[in-house]
Amino acid sequence: MKVAEITRDKFAEAVKMDPVAVFVIGATEAHGPHLPLNSDTVQPMWVAEELDRRFDNLLILPPMNYGVHSSTRNMPGTVAITFDTMRSVTYDVLTSLFEKGVKKFLVMTGHAGSAHMTACSEACKRFVRETGCKVIFLTDYDVAEEHPDVRGIKGDGHAGLLETSRVMAICPELVGQARPIGLYSDHGFLVLANAEICFPEGLAGDTTDASAELGDAVNRYVADKIEEMIRNDLV
Amino acid sequence: MKVAEITRDKFAEAVKMDPVAVFVIGATEAHGPHLPLNSDTVQPMWVAEELDRRFDNLLILPPMNYGVHSSTRNMPGTVAITFDTMRSVTYDVLTSLFEKGVKKFLVMTGHAGSAHMTACSEACKRFVRETGCKVIFLTDYDVAEEHPDVRGIKGDGHAGLLETSRVMAICPELVGQARPIGLYSDHGFLVLANAEICFPEGLAGDTTDASAELGDAVNRYVADKIEEMIRNDLV
Amino acid sequence: MKVAEITRDKFAEAVKMDPVAVFVIGATEAHGPHLPLNSDTVQPMWVAEELDRRFDNLLILPPMNYGVHSSTRNMPGTVAITFDTMRSVTYDVLTSLFEKGVKKFLVMTGHAGSAHMTACSEACKRFVRETGCKVIFLTDYDVAEEHPDVRGIKGDGHAGLLETSRVMAICPELVGQARPIGLYSDHGFLVLANAEICFPEGLAGDTTDASAELGDAVNRYVADKIEEMIRNDLV
Amino acid sequence: MKVAEITRDKFAEAVKMDPVAVFVIGATEAHGPHLPLNSDTVQPMWVAEELDRRFDNLLILPPMNYGVHSSTRNMPGTVAITFDTMRSVTYDVLTSLFEKGVKKFLVMTGHAGSAHMTACSEACKRFVRETGCKVIFLTDYDVAEEHPDVRGIKGDGHAGLLETSRVMAICPELVGQARPIGLYSDHGFLVLANAEICFPEGLAGDTTDASAELGDAVNRYVADKIEEMIRNDLV
Amino acid sequence: MKVAEITRDKFAEAVKMDPVAVFVIGATEAHGPHLPLNSDTVQPMWVAEELDRRFDNLLILPPMNYGVHSSTRNMPGTVAITFDTMRSVTYDVLTSLFEKGVKKFLVMTGHAGSAHMTACSEACKRFVRETGCKVIFLTDYDVAEEHPDVRGIKGDGHAGLLETSRVMAICPELVGQARPIGLYSDHGFLVLANAEICFPEGLAGDTTDASAELGDAVNRYVADKIEEMIRNDLV
Amino acid sequence: MKVAEITRDKFAEAVKMDPVAVFVIGATEAHGPHLPLNSDTVQPMWVAEELDRRFDNLLILPPMNYGVHSSTRNMPGTVAITFDTMRSVTYDVLTSLFEKGVKKFLVMTGHAGSAHMTACSEACKRFVRETGCKVIFLTDYDVAEEHPDVRGIKGDGHAGLLETSRVMAICPELVGQARPIGLYSDHGFLVLANAEICFPEGLAGDTTDASAELGDAVNRYVADKIEEMIRNDLV
Repeated sequence: MKVAEITRDKFAEAVKMDPVAVFVIGATEAHGPHLPLNSDTVQPMWVAEELDRRFDNLLILPPMNYGVHSSTRNMPGTVAITFDTMRSVTYDVLTSLFEKGVKKFLVMTGHAGSAHMTACSEACKRFVRETGCKVIFLTDYDVAEEHPDVRGIKGDGHAGLLETSRVMAICPELVGQARPIGLYSDHGFLVLANAEICFPEGLAGDTTDASAELGDAVNRYVADKIEEMIRNDLV
Repeated sequence: MKVAEITRDKFAEAVKMDPVAVFVIGATEAHGPHLPLNSDTVQPMWVAEELDRRFDNLLILPPMNYGVHSSTRNMPGTVAITFDTMRSVTYDVLTSLFEKGVKKFLVMTGHAGSAHMTACSEACKRFVRETGCKVIFLTDYDVAEEHPDVRGIKGDGHAGLLETSRVMAICPELVGQARPIGLYSDHGFLVLANAEICFPEGLAGDTTDASAELGDAVNRYVADKIEEMIRNDLV
Repeated sequence: MKVAEITRDKFAEAVKMDPVAVFVIGATEAHGPHLPLNSDTVQPMWVAEELDRRFDNLLILPPMNYGVHSSTRNMPGTVAITFDTMRSVTYDVLTSLFEKGVKKFLVMTGHAGSAHMTACSEACKRFVRETGCKVIFLTDYDVAEEHPDVRGIKGDGHAGLLETSRVMAICPELVGQARPIGLYSDHGFLVLANAEICFPEGLAGDTTDASAELGDAVNRYVADKIEEMIRNDLV
Repeated sequence: MKVAEITRDKFAEAVKMDPVAVFVIGATEAHGPHLPLNSDTVQPMWVAEELDRRFDNLLILPPMNYGVHSSTRNMPGTVAITFDTMRSVTYDVLTSLFEKGVKKFLVMTGHAGSAHMTACSEACKRFVRETGCKVIFLTDYDVAEEHPDVRGIKGDGHAGLLETSRVMAICPELVGQARPIGLYSDHGFLVLANAEICFPEGLAGDTTDASAELGDAVNRYVADKIEEMIRNDLV
Repeated sequence: MKVAEITRDKFAEAVKMDPVAVFVIGATEAHGPHLPLNSDTVQPMWVAEELDRRFDNLLILPPMNYGVHSSTRNMPGTVAITFDTMRSVTYDVLTSLFEKGVKKFLVMTGHAGSAHMTACSEACKRFVRETGCKVIFLTDYDVAEEHPDVRGIKGDGHAGLLETSRVMAICPELVGQARPIGLYSDHGFLVLANAEICFPEGLAGDTTDASAELGDAVNRYVADKIEEMIRNDLV
Repeated sequence: MKVAEITRDKFAEAVKMDPVAVFVIGATEAHGPHLPLNSDTVQPMWVAEELDRRFDNLLILPPMNYGVHSSTRNMPGTVAITFDTMRSVTYDVLTSLFEKGVKKFLVMTGHAGSAHMTACSEACKRFVRETGCKVIFLTDYDVAEEHPDVRGIKGDGHAGLLETSRVMAICPELVGQARPIGLYSDHGFLVLANAEICFPEGLAGDTTDASAELGDAVNRYVADKIEEMIRNDLV
């Protein structure tokens, strides 16, 4: 159930069932010329809500709507928080729930940037060491790109075919008409203050064939895989 | 417009119009036996969206869904972050937007706890000193309780008549049937680790006469007042 | 007894009596054209010393002479420390005393600014949660303004009638001849880098009728009220 | 003049004269069985006040009454703050005064512990690098032990002949009758959690011949030397 | 030239030539049953020294001998520092050199753990944004595994064929007789406090065919590739 | 044995013998016109390796090659880290070893600057308080200057006769031909942003008579003294 929408007493009851709390960490980030800035929030939130339909003791937390951004940091629409802030938010939310009796967690982030991922995962690791709780941490993006229909596609990445399709399946009204093609332009190991030049078109991949149908298949695949993880590792 | 739902390019255009960014800081907090845990998010979000209808250059940011909690900290359903985390989130979000060209801000929090307010306001003060931007910071709660129909009511507070009515007007489906009465039991100046004992019923006030009608009147009153502030101070 | 003035052995004896340590947090702050910069130190120190006469097991600590300042921050004579520093000083002093066996505390600050108060109170809350000690935290200003002779007076505040009278009663030789009138000029919710403009005359209130007599009555009233709190909550 | 005791306007005038601000960092620390806990505050404060008589543009700040303590940390009566807190207090006070126009500083600490000294001095160094202000930082203890009458005396240290005499000259009423003898018992380079065992009697030195007369001579000598430094380096 | 071994004046001369400073971040980390704990230091140091032979204006800094470790954190021999410490060391060293006039940097770490890499890279990014210096940051491991002879080998990783060969080429006397085979046992996305269980044999890969010959080829290949990067991006 | 050069299993065996871990904190610092920048690393490392020959259960850790510098901070060749970074490195290394079962430590720094020493020693003190481990912390410089042949020599200090001789004994090939004479020019208590002016020649002392012979005698003397401390305090 959605934590945002229940009362204190519902929450208290739910905790007694040894629930899995699902904490989605989204983002507000430029996603090419065609995708909405909340793309990295709506994708894992859809998965969370789908999982909620498959289990009877999930607590879907309100999402964190901001993340850490490097390569898109200077693009219009990206609203970034710092590494330390992201780490603290993650740690605080888990800790506060632990104080209420929650012992199992799925922390799922839509954004897969490496600094961002490390910030979240450092918080999770500290939390696990301190409390002994069980925590799955992942980005649904990593799961999604294992889907058979997209696995082989070279050069697909940020705001590309995969993401475009997934967002089309979830909130088609927010997706622009353009189906852009973009190349991730590797700048090697030089540390860039303007890393956005790696995405001259603001995305990586060819979105021509993006479709809600593909997106829906991927979204369900992600939910299936994570359902499996929860059943294996958390319940 | 809602930042979450627009694209990079829409955002870039909007910034050229010298917009006012509206950052809602909500909460996930126990609100009596009858109100949803997101009560402090939905109230200011309604105001933000209403303001969006009244101006053509607002940027409604995705809300921050967690805050700092003291008196309800131990109640089921409250998910708290620390003072320093709250301060950092607020500072980072403003700073990131400033780097994108935004110069005017309304930071509006639904939760009115004093540590929480100070965390947000310390971030705003630092940001203003460093950038010279214009920032209005307030809790819509403080504005709401000036509404003529509720101003005189003694003992109304957390999750009381005012809040119950406002939430009823916004999302009646999330409000429980109970119309509880609660007394804020003052424990003086002793610093309490279990400050929730000040709210034996989990709320302060008599919600018997709460109504969506009253809530709607108050919500519009809040929007009116803040519209006025924006016109006077920011545009 | 005054901790500053006793020896190690006297201190050790005192601790055996399960004393209440009284930690005054003063300030060095502009107080209108007429009051000394230590006004927020001398007021609570007088109260602390008066309480010392009424109990046989108080440990009056040396005061902290600096606080956090927002609205008077830019005025000549205000010497401010930051929020984090204030919080650390408070936490460290309590913790160090706890390591020596002290379990009961009155933390009393003369300055009532909200960021300042939160800094002190966050430290107290953390300390109470960690140690289980009993801590009263207050500003004597909040108690003082409940005195029947001043309670109803509108617009009296910083360096106004109440404070002027209290300081006159304590150290008349430091109070200037002027009896200024000042208006707190509300600037609403705009975050101000130059918040001193809210006090165009540097004070709030009408000090024309200030008198040592009134001040003495208030000071004793404050001592009475806090004596009561100590008896109820700490001993 | 004493900053604590002047008004805002007096302070503003004083700043126009390009004053030297004198910031005394005292301590609340066990000083043998016979000296008061504020010994490290009263010694430099006496010097500061004596200097005030010799210059017409000193601003004597209210003292910081707490410091960092290692070897006496566990003794009854020592109230310690941490390294970082001490460093922050020093930095904040200097910075706040600099914002008011003060450019010259004497930071004088009565306590000469090495961690304590480093905390203060790290703050001073950072401040000097950032602002280009002139800052003298010292412990009056280091100056005092150069006095010809005490320079040669072996084993005199914490709460010993020198300090006992100085405090006797300043506040004889606070000095106990005992004239103890104590040996600093060197424990080599082992890091001690209970470093107080180095002072089995709580002091280092033979106080038998301590006298207000000697103390007064030393106190004046310290004032002379520091007067010279101020004339050479600051004015 | 090796910074450790030159004098102040040699360093000053070198800086005039607009040198590239090479900062090796090594590690002290368990590397299977057969490799020395400094494996992640000697590999990049060999590369640095080889590069030094190929350029006339490199400044090879003394290595940082400790890094951040997650999966091997609990293994005997791993000596880990925290994320924040690693980030600070990297930032401080670069900043200190920048203050001396150095503007070009190669930061090369032998350890390729993701938290470790992020710590170093966050420091580099901040430094580049603040100073505009040119910084290449990489782990030589990522370059090495592109060598044609090892690229295709599945399951080779920590302390495997590649690393064993490289260390054999550099310091054969430190490599044990065993040529172990180890499997990286994927534990999915569960956050592990005991992540060493992923390496039941303490390594990943089959070292049977490890040889100094292969190692030397790879080492030279790495030097070639990085020489190229330096020529393209830094000089 | 040298931790860098052993394997995981050797380390595990060594820990069973209740070893003393020896952590050398070196520096990269200007040492006059004639000494190499690693002078403060090679001196304590020689001592550590000599001690290793005298005991059968020492664990000589890889050195930390950077320290905190004040007076030589601006000289070419000095690469400084901050106080907080130094403190963290020391604390982290000790803590990580403690988690592996090590309980006894010799922390030996070649650099004897007071801020540097305090950074290391604050970390050691915290570690000892938290773990109860036995830690000796010292700079070998303090021990060296007690050697009968150098004890009386006035004005000998940084990069002077003592240090020059010691480095000559250890790595003569790195010592330049010059045998400079330098005067430490005391600038009193003024806090200097350019403290290098205290060393106009970059060193303190007369190195004319420096010799490897003297250096070797001192080095052995230091090893003798520290051997004694280890036998008395740690084993």
